[in-house]
Amino acid sequence: MTDTLGSSYKDMANAIRALSMDAVQQAKSGHPGMPMGMADVATVLWARHLKFDPAAPAWADRDRFILSAGHGSMLLYSLLHLTGFEDMTIEQIKNFRQLGSITAGHPEFGHTPGVEATTGPLGQGISMAVGMALAERMLNAKYGEDLVDHRTWVIASDGDLQEGVSHEAISLAGHLKLNRLCVFWDDNEISIDGPTHVSESTDVVKRFDAAGWETLRVDGHDHEAIDAAIEKARLSDKPVMIACRTTIGYGAPTKAGTAGSHGAPLGEEEIAGAREALGWPHAPFEIPDEIYQAWRATGSPEVHDAWRDRLASTDRADELVAQLSGEPDETALTALREWRMKVAAEKPKLASRAASGKTLEAILPSWPGLVGGSADLTGSNLTKTSHGGVVSAEDYAGPYIHFGVREHGMAAAANGMALHGGLRPYVATFLVFADYCRGSMRLSSLMEQPVVYVLTHDSIGLGEDGPTHQPVETLASLRAIPNMQVFRPCDALETAEAWEMALVRTDGPSVLALSRQGLPVLREDDGAVNLSKQGAYILRDCDGEPDAVIVATGSEVLLGVEAAEALGEQGRKVRVVSAPCLDVFAAQDEAYKAEVLPQGVPVIGVEAALQFGWDSLLGRSVRFVGMTGFGASAPAGDLYKHFEITTDAVIAAVNAELA
Amino acid sequence: MTDTLGSSYKDMANAIRALSMDAVQQAKSGHPGMPMGMADVATVLWARHLKFDPAAPAWADRDRFILSAGHGSMLLYSLLHLTGFEDMTIEQIKNFRQLGSITAGHPEFGHTPGVEATTGPLGQGISMAVGMALAERMLNAKYGEDLVDHRTWVIASDGDLQEGVSHEAISLAGHLKLNRLCVFWDDNEISIDGPTHVSESTDVVKRFDAAGWETLRVDGHDHEAIDAAIEKARLSDKPVMIACRTTIGYGAPTKAGTAGSHGAPLGEEEIAGAREALGWPHAPFEIPDEIYQAWRATGSPEVHDAWRDRLASTDRADELVAQLSGEPDETALTALREWRMKVAAEKPKLASRAASGKTLEAILPSWPGLVGGSADLTGSNLTKTSHGGVVSAEDYAGPYIHFGVREHGMAAAANGMALHGGLRPYVATFLVFADYCRGSMRLSSLMEQPVVYVLTHDSIGLGEDGPTHQPVETLASLRAIPNMQVFRPCDALETAEAWEMALVRTDGPSVLALSRQGLPVLREDDGAVNLSKQGAYILRDCDGEPDAVIVATGSEVLLGVEAAEALGEQGRKVRVVSAPCLDVFAAQDEAYKAEVLPQGVPVIGVEAALQFGWDSLLGRSVRFVGMTGFGASAPAGDLYKHFEITTDAVIAAVNAELA
Repeated sequence: MTDTLGSSYKDMANAIRALSMDAVQQAKSGHPGMPMGMADVATVLWARHLKFDPAAPAWADRDRFILSAGHGSMLLYSLLHLTGFEDMTIEQIKNFRQLGSITAGHPEFGHTPGVEATTGPLGQGISMAVGMALAERMLNAKYGEDLVDHRTWVIASDGDLQEGVSHEAISLAGHLKLNRLCVFWDDNEISIDGPTHVSESTDVVKRFDAAGWETLRVDGHDHEAIDAAIEKARLSDKPVMIACRTTIGYGAPTKAGTAGSHGAPLGEEEIAGAREALGWPHAPFEIPDEIYQAWRATGSPEVHDAWRDRLASTDRADELVAQLSGEPDETALTALREWRMKVAAEKPKLASRAASGKTLEAILPSWPGLVGGSADLTGSNLTKTSHGGVVSAEDYAGPYIHFGVREHGMAAAANGMALHGGLRPYVATFLVFADYCRGSMRLSSLMEQPVVYVLTHDSIGLGEDGPTHQPVETLASLRAIPNMQVFRPCDALETAEAWEMALVRTDGPSVLALSRQGLPVLREDDGAVNLSKQGAYILRDCDGEPDAVIVATGSEVLLGVEAAEALGEQGRKVRVVSAPCLDVFAAQDEAYKAEVLPQGVPVIGVEAALQFGWDSLLGRSVRFVGMTGFGASAPAGDLYKHFEITTDAVIAAVNAELA
Repeated sequence: MTDTLGSSYKDMANAIRALSMDAVQQAKSGHPGMPMGMADVATVLWARHLKFDPAAPAWADRDRFILSAGHGSMLLYSLLHLTGFEDMTIEQIKNFRQLGSITAGHPEFGHTPGVEATTGPLGQGISMAVGMALAERMLNAKYGEDLVDHRTWVIASDGDLQEGVSHEAISLAGHLKLNRLCVFWDDNEISIDGPTHVSESTDVVKRFDAAGWETLRVDGHDHEAIDAAIEKARLSDKPVMIACRTTIGYGAPTKAGTAGSHGAPLGEEEIAGAREALGWPHAPFEIPDEIYQAWRATGSPEVHDAWRDRLASTDRADELVAQLSGEPDETALTALREWRMKVAAEKPKLASRAASGKTLEAILPSWPGLVGGSADLTGSNLTKTSHGGVVSAEDYAGPYIHFGVREHGMAAAANGMALHGGLRPYVATFLVFADYCRGSMRLSSLMEQPVVYVLTHDSIGLGEDGPTHQPVETLASLRAIPNMQVFRPCDALETAEAWEMALVRTDGPSVLALSRQGLPVLREDDGAVNLSKQGAYILRDCDGEPDAVIVATGSEVLLGVEAAEALGEQGRKVRVVSAPCLDVFAAQDEAYKAEVLPQGVPVIGVEAALQFGWDSLLGRSVRFVGMTGFGASAPAGDLYKHFEITTDAVIAAVNAELA
């Protein structure tokens, strides 16, 4: 191995190896093999190329480093410690994988400064990185290279590349020529089940070629070759994949190059052998001062200073800082309120997907950074406005993105855009295909990223496309995700309110479940107050204490209103509660819940979906009018009758409850 | 266009076009463009190559035809009608997309004879086809080519190939050299959002090359070229992809070649123009006799007869027929019962994943066709037995399959294997990664296929890997799927019972949610009767009417037992109900449910997951001890204490309820 970059790189890399194998050993669990294998690549990248400032982990124009192979978390924690990220002390390294440490088993965004994304579920990191690289180009198109000019670097494993989501991400990145993206493939020829050839024969380099990437190959332990490849990557007009042939567990005397070094401590004896083989005589968690000094000399604080100077000297500083904050300003809040009141005044009968499209049309110009797209269902999801253009390799300004039929890659990219900062992404497909992007939706929730999922065709109301396209369990499955707010508005006004709540929210994702079919405006107020804010509210009340309360969502609120009217004529006192967001209602205090749903008064739930989860969210046993299994293919009206989700069925349910 | 195959092919293809555009027009919804574009390819395939017998849609050795682009369902329905599948009458065609017809919006397996798989969710068809082609090779390895020797043909769209699951399926098929698989890519350069170039720049042919496929290109309207390509494909030793350059909506005067012909009726005027352009003067739904005759002359009844003769003359007929039935025989049932009783006698303390592995080890030889694998977590899922070998391109006998890190493709392939018949697939990953394969799991349920999902590491009990790997909402999200039975056994005996129920079941999929951590055997009976059959049962009872009932699942049943014992010493009468399958319990009659959970007696639920769904499934308001959000990274014992899922917490919950 030639190494004209000086022997310090070898020692710097060995510091990563030692910290990794020792921390895993101490934790009695973890993955030493990958950090030991990729230590050389990471050293050259961080020491010579990565633009970062340990004193400012959130500096907007920093390069992003994504450890897609998140199980190798000790690689990242070692780098953060060695380069001097303040919170990443040696004590944290010693407490790897222990309760309360910032050194969790897999890197967790928000938990550990310097961790750019939560990774571990394979394929997510590389796919979020595509979103980050796209966000950089979109913001660069707006603010110019003086203010936005950084790169996204990824370490990806064989497993990352086997995952389907990687295909979606890679093809999107190739299509958009995201040349600020560079992926290091840890080509170590080892998977958990053994050599990769037990399950894989793909020519990975050719695969990236086919997707429009520039591809390079290097010896992943040759510092000079790695450096040269990165230099070349920086000049590419395409995204770059560098295949790094490495030895997993590099240095371990018997386990290197085997699955045995992948996911378990090496053991004391093997570690002693590795120390010898690597020429690393230091005790566990001891790093010689000169190695610390070499590492602490990396980073780009002076580049950060220069950026701050440029920011200070531009008249766009306030605009950029405000956009990066993600918080709405007064203009945005006013636009939202005015739109609500306009809808309340005009009462348009619209499918909620159409109401959503009109809401976007009305508010998008007031929300700098509001960008989005659809997984090839633009005309169905109604997510494209007349404002601005479509993102392409020739012009990244956007704000609209044709994601192609790539639901999972789209959701992951949205996470990446949200994590990057400066953009507020919304992404769209049919509600039932939330199943295709659930891996990424879960991460939106876990990472507390305010991605807006616009999911239309929300029930059997979509009609003829049949059970493959009709969600019945999907609302439940999404409501079950912690920190995911699922909205199902009943009319154009609630749709506007849901959009407002999804956009004002900064600590987690929202789903807007929207109808294909037209819905009349049921609300009679002027729209000045967002009534959806408590998740559910009294839409139509009876005189005095109700005999029963109908709680309904979305397109079925109309059935509840009609049923209550008919029941009123029969002398029943029935209240109608519209529940655009059951999750938000479940989080209200008991007093409000009791005000809406008085104790002892029976509750009838109505939703063209399964009952599953309703009782838990309402904290009550519910008699339910809805679906009991999969749907069918027929015109929507026929299906509602066939599955007995009708005004008459609601009336019958109330009467049965009161009998 | 040269056409030495005779002008009848042109007319035969036009019959498909006419039926498709007319049926969509009559239904006022649907997708005429794809059937019109791929009519020529389908005609050559069905008329000259596909091995099928309209009189026997379920003939075991037929070729499989999978319309992955399921939105083009009229292509398939037209073919079934024209070739003479009895149920597919012209009346059914006229009733396309209407309630009660067998011509649903998307093809539905089990609903329509001749439909081999439910398709429409993109990417699923091609991925199921990989499972079918693999099943054919595995059964061929056992029974030889006299009995098992057929091909799987797929029509896939641009959208199918954009989906990530297609990457997993294609790379697996290439790795296993499934040369009986042939995919026709409908390369029509049109997506819903417009020309494919708005979102796609991949060199698709190179992509398949990279995955180890043979690739060909043809003019998809040139019958001779199509025929020659198929002839070539039949000789390949690799799976084959034929890129068919077609014109979507072929024949439509203004909409052909545009997104306008994709997903909506063409309109009367356009249809009249198409009739003229195609030279098809016949009225809607009228097919001239000579065209019917030409179509009815296709198919392979004589090949079917010959196969029946070979089957009759082999001494393996009974074995094959029994294996194809999917029903367990006496040997299998005895093996299951004996294994249960052995476990009951020996009471091994095992993680339920380990108990699952031992169950498989014990019963696999008694279940011909029981095959399975893991998404690169074999040593964690414990799914590999000592019986037989590993499937490879050199030897397909199996029964074990290294699926690689391809959860979605694995689940889709399992659907394909189950649909194919003769194999009973089980597939494995971590429970939390059910999110990655949910698109296919939903189809298992919808198609009523008895796939067994072995999902280990089922809670925070997995410990240090942290929240990305800890399911909290996953059980709820799976229980929400209609017809999905989710088991969470509490010990080795319940694990054996769950396996029995999953295998004996023939009308839908099962999930086995299994622990990483060791669990003592709590059952005290001899295992002769499968107590899990009713989903939940009284595991420990008190004397007389209980003050409270603790219902628990999996690893938390032990907490319930310990709590009940402690409470008993305090004078509380507490019953413990083990609920290995809440879905099955929910389906019991009210009498049994009231016997287990007496009315008026409070219920305390215990599960290291969210409460979501428990109240609906038990039909009761439940006080819950479990998770309220995402997990954390730490040793399992620390996490149980941190999240207060302990015996003391259960005791406190019972006392609070009774206070």
